[in-house]
Amino acid sequence: MSKYDMLGWAKELFHIARSLTGDGVRETFRYFEEIHPEITRHVFATGTQVFDWTIPKEWKIRDAYVEHIETGARFAEFKQHNLHVLGYSAPIDQVMDKAELLPHIYTQEDQPDLIPYVTSYYSERWGFCMSHNAKAMLPEGAYRVVIDSDLFDGELIVGDAKIQGQLDREIMFSSYICHPSMANNELSGPVVSMALLKYIKEHYPNTRYSYRFVLVPETIGSITYMSENLADMQARVECGFNLSCVGDDRSFSHVQSRYANTIADKALEAALIGKENVKTYSFLHRGSDERQYGAPGIDMPLCGFCRTKYGEYPEYHTDADNFDVVTDAGLNGAFEVLRSIIDAFEIGLFPKVTVKGEPQLGKRELYPTISQKGTYSSINARMDFLAYADGTNTLFDIAKIIGVPLSIVLDEARLMAEHNLIQTSVTSQ
Amino acid sequence: MSKYDMLGWAKELFHIARSLTGDGVRETFRYFEEIHPEITRHVFATGTQVFDWTIPKEWKIRDAYVEHIETGARFAEFKQHNLHVLGYSAPIDQVMDKAELLPHIYTQEDQPDLIPYVTSYYSERWGFCMSHNAKAMLPEGAYRVVIDSDLFDGELIVGDAKIQGQLDREIMFSSYICHPSMANNELSGPVVSMALLKYIKEHYPNTRYSYRFVLVPETIGSITYMSENLADMQARVECGFNLSCVGDDRSFSHVQSRYANTIADKALEAALIGKENVKTYSFLHRGSDERQYGAPGIDMPLCGFCRTKYGEYPEYHTDADNFDVVTDAGLNGAFEVLRSIIDAFEIGLFPKVTVKGEPQLGKRELYPTISQKGTYSSINARMDFLAYADGTNTLFDIAKIIGVPLSIVLDEARLMAEHNLIQTSVTSQ
Amino acid sequence: MSKYDMLGWAKELFHIARSLTGDGVRETFRYFEEIHPEITRHVFATGTQVFDWTIPKEWKIRDAYVEHIETGARFAEFKQHNLHVLGYSAPIDQVMDKAELLPHIYTQEDQPDLIPYVTSYYSERWGFCMSHNAKAMLPEGAYRVVIDSDLFDGELIVGDAKIQGQLDREIMFSSYICHPSMANNELSGPVVSMALLKYIKEHYPNTRYSYRFVLVPETIGSITYMSENLADMQARVECGFNLSCVGDDRSFSHVQSRYANTIADKALEAALIGKENVKTYSFLHRGSDERQYGAPGIDMPLCGFCRTKYGEYPEYHTDADNFDVVTDAGLNGAFEVLRSIIDAFEIGLFPKVTVKGEPQLGKRELYPTISQKGTYSSINARMDFLAYADGTNTLFDIAKIIGVPLSIVLDEARLMAEHNLIQTSVTSQ
Repeated sequence: MSKYDMLGWAKELFHIARSLTGDGVRETFRYFEEIHPEITRHVFATGTQVFDWTIPKEWKIRDAYVEHIETGARFAEFKQHNLHVLGYSAPIDQVMDKAELLPHIYTQEDQPDLIPYVTSYYSERWGFCMSHNAKAMLPEGAYRVVIDSDLFDGELIVGDAKIQGQLDREIMFSSYICHPSMANNELSGPVVSMALLKYIKEHYPNTRYSYRFVLVPETIGSITYMSENLADMQARVECGFNLSCVGDDRSFSHVQSRYANTIADKALEAALIGKENVKTYSFLHRGSDERQYGAPGIDMPLCGFCRTKYGEYPEYHTDADNFDVVTDAGLNGAFEVLRSIIDAFEIGLFPKVTVKGEPQLGKRELYPTISQKGTYSSINARMDFLAYADGTNTLFDIAKIIGVPLSIVLDEARLMAEHNLIQTSVTSQ
Repeated sequence: MSKYDMLGWAKELFHIARSLTGDGVRETFRYFEEIHPEITRHVFATGTQVFDWTIPKEWKIRDAYVEHIETGARFAEFKQHNLHVLGYSAPIDQVMDKAELLPHIYTQEDQPDLIPYVTSYYSERWGFCMSHNAKAMLPEGAYRVVIDSDLFDGELIVGDAKIQGQLDREIMFSSYICHPSMANNELSGPVVSMALLKYIKEHYPNTRYSYRFVLVPETIGSITYMSENLADMQARVECGFNLSCVGDDRSFSHVQSRYANTIADKALEAALIGKENVKTYSFLHRGSDERQYGAPGIDMPLCGFCRTKYGEYPEYHTDADNFDVVTDAGLNGAFEVLRSIIDAFEIGLFPKVTVKGEPQLGKRELYPTISQKGTYSSINARMDFLAYADGTNTLFDIAKIIGVPLSIVLDEARLMAEHNLIQTSVTSQ
Repeated sequence: MSKYDMLGWAKELFHIARSLTGDGVRETFRYFEEIHPEITRHVFATGTQVFDWTIPKEWKIRDAYVEHIETGARFAEFKQHNLHVLGYSAPIDQVMDKAELLPHIYTQEDQPDLIPYVTSYYSERWGFCMSHNAKAMLPEGAYRVVIDSDLFDGELIVGDAKIQGQLDREIMFSSYICHPSMANNELSGPVVSMALLKYIKEHYPNTRYSYRFVLVPETIGSITYMSENLADMQARVECGFNLSCVGDDRSFSHVQSRYANTIADKALEAALIGKENVKTYSFLHRGSDERQYGAPGIDMPLCGFCRTKYGEYPEYHTDADNFDVVTDAGLNGAFEVLRSIIDAFEIGLFPKVTVKGEPQLGKRELYPTISQKGTYSSINARMDFLAYADGTNTLFDIAKIIGVPLSIVLDEARLMAEHNLIQTSVTSQ
């Protein structure tokens, strides 16, 4: 069982019809604000210029369906599943022939039983999403086509929660709140993010580092957020993660930063040592907001973290992305990876031994006192940790160099610090 | 069909009896000077010291054969094929037994039907080259051995053609004009080089970069040329290529610079992305004038370019190196590779995006407006180009990083520049 | 046959009962001091603090055995093999039941015929070492258990021999003199070390570099030595090797320094080019005094050298580590590797060609004067040596870059220097 009820949160949030903008976003923010009152919303009016982009109209969706005139049978009902409506669909209420309707129905031919998730944010269209099989079964004849939506001058909302630490240097987590009823992509990211915030508040009342948790609609949201905060972020953020699809229990994925050279990359690589089914993707395979955070001129030291990466699991962007995919074990696996990274920062990233040569561990009961071949193996991680705790390596570097899971490295760091055999620092020594 | 009639030029030049020095070199220069009047010859007298070397005697060759006294039958006739005489052979006119003649006949035992190309530039010898089978058939008896040549105090000629651009920074191409009747090694290099010069003059009336085209006899020629021009070259040359065996259509070969770290190496590597049968050879496998240009103390930023590398194709240094080997497609393949490199320099090597975050390509009709899984792939090259167009990468770097052929990268660079989404510069930004 | 009688020395030293301290160490020093009078002993009293460690009591061992009361039969007799007594065993003279004795008998279960080498330096115990099979055969009944040893306030001895060269920059060799009757681990290290010292004195009466040969008990000895000499060593030592298990003829092993980036690593890598069965171990597989020399805060530019590495051969730390394992060929193979490294330093590590472009080797009879395909191969090493003799590469670098054994590179360096085609220097040019 996870320390925090991430799965319960996700289930409560699942049925909200989120999009880039609109009441679904507001409702989602309200939910998290009850858990974390420090969340702050930032509101941008339709038409505002944000970097190269423009804040789009707000979208309100109340209902949508197609009704077969002859029989009264309804199909693609929004109230059955909110994926049935094309995201950002323009309103319509019109009778038309099936032939006229069909081009407006989007399906996923290679997964004929599933409803795909399709959007048209930046070009006004109307449309429905259905399983390919259901579309094939639509009866002949005329249809009444109803999308009860509004596209109007409204607002786009981004939010953040910040913890000021002893240092201004920041660790950042970003995820997004723009997807309708899909569990992994993307309720998993926000719930893991909000659980991490809870963990920090409970375990580190006075953090070394500062923390920033960002919740935004994808792409336009991160651009909007940065259009207001970029200078501050560039001055403070030292390590960041974009969380996407962190709820299934099939693999662990690292989407590298543009040059795969940030401390976030090192941290994640270290935190995944010893995990099963670890996959590393170069920035060429980016797809979520690491696209924006890692763009030239932005250059956040951030990488992407997923369990199974968006696009790499069959349920992605369909109605099958549900709680068969997202599990407690999946969410908790993601949580623990990121928690260990937070712990490493708070311990002090750079350990340095306090003695010259190897310390005499035997006198501290940290080393076997009898020497025979074969007796050394259990203590290798400790000796190797000390060998590379030379003040130039981070805990992440050490884990990688000595090939030991980060959690064990952190245990050794804590134990050696108790015996005054290392000192830790937030900078290279 | 190639843009320029490189194959026609090569065929007209084929029968000239070139060597390190002599009338064949002069005739070859005259031919290219008609195409490019800016070619300038530089003449060095026999005996002149050039770095560690000495300009050798000039060699004039009029005729050569061996005549079987008893039958009058002639063999190894220079007038049948100019490879029949050992390059730089001393004169002789003497009757001798077959046994005395045989040690002076060079053959290629592993290719018994072919006449090998053999030279003795720096040690005075006389000799003939024959196919191993023809040598075996020589009748018994006495022979009159005739080589009607002179070795005398004359001159060695090197040549260059220069284009002064807006910048003094130079791109250099070097090839050699010392081989007799062999098509790939080495008429291919000069004709491709001269076609590139034509291309630059026709397409870039006012070049950004300066260009230098060097035509020399191999080894002694490049040493001689540099003995006069080294300081100038070290001050100006930013990227250079030695062209050798660039006329067959079997593979593309990159002979790396001494440390494989010059911009020429990067350029060639990028220009060969997506080609079939690309081979990369370290400097340990050098063999043409990259030996001299890349020597310590010279250190030109230059690498070698071949289609199939000298020594790696069976016809190399034999009379089979003819127009069965060298084709229009072969020459043109080499031309296009080098043209794309010239284009990259002229576009401006360092592109930098003009907006923060990803640009909104959709509003410029450069991106699909509907989002469904599977629709992104065609646009990946564009997004990846923009992601790495951060002012620190050359167009060559970007091609390599994103794994896209240089020609496509150049197309994207031109398109993005049209939309003012990038600016290019000749220096890192 | 080796140049020096290393095998003879080792055989004479084999039966001495060495340990961390005691008369065995003194006797071993006396032996080497006869060969090399410049060896100097440094003595540290029990209880002295050395870095994080404390000099232990001195151990004197006179006899040890267990005697079956009923039959008078003796087992585990120290006088039969000095491995029979647990190293640093406390004295005992007591009658006890077999059941009480057994937990004090150490065996190697996976090698049931062999006596293991076991020690308890830093925790007072008494014990015996026997083959597992012999232990199983011990008759039932009472035993008189005798270990005639003393643990008393005495001294620990370390020693060194130094040669002052023209430069203060030092090459260091360290090995250890604390193991009882085992041939490879560790008489091989000291005898190879002492042969190298002999070689230097005989061949280089006026060395360029300074040399330091260190003989210490393992771990505590190197720590003790450095506690007195660290500042001097850090100022002078440029390259060092810890010698351990250098006497068998099965493989060559390189135990890399902490970051595998010292000149010692490069030197050893170069010297092993072309050898059979070369193994490279990262610092994570360290085990001898490279642990101390390479610890943070010490940071000696030193790596470990073995033939077959400690722990990797079956006879290691048992009575089977004898002169079936250690051979003349084995010792000499190690000697030659290290001798070639010494030669490289004394030649001058950085060669630089004296001419621009390739030198004209033909006029010096260093290059074939006739050019035909296939004739170049024998000369490749020479041309490649010259190409990389650019003043920035050490002889070690060049050997690695061109893939040629160090000994051949040294031959070329000497030949090219004779012809004034290179100059060598002890620094990058």
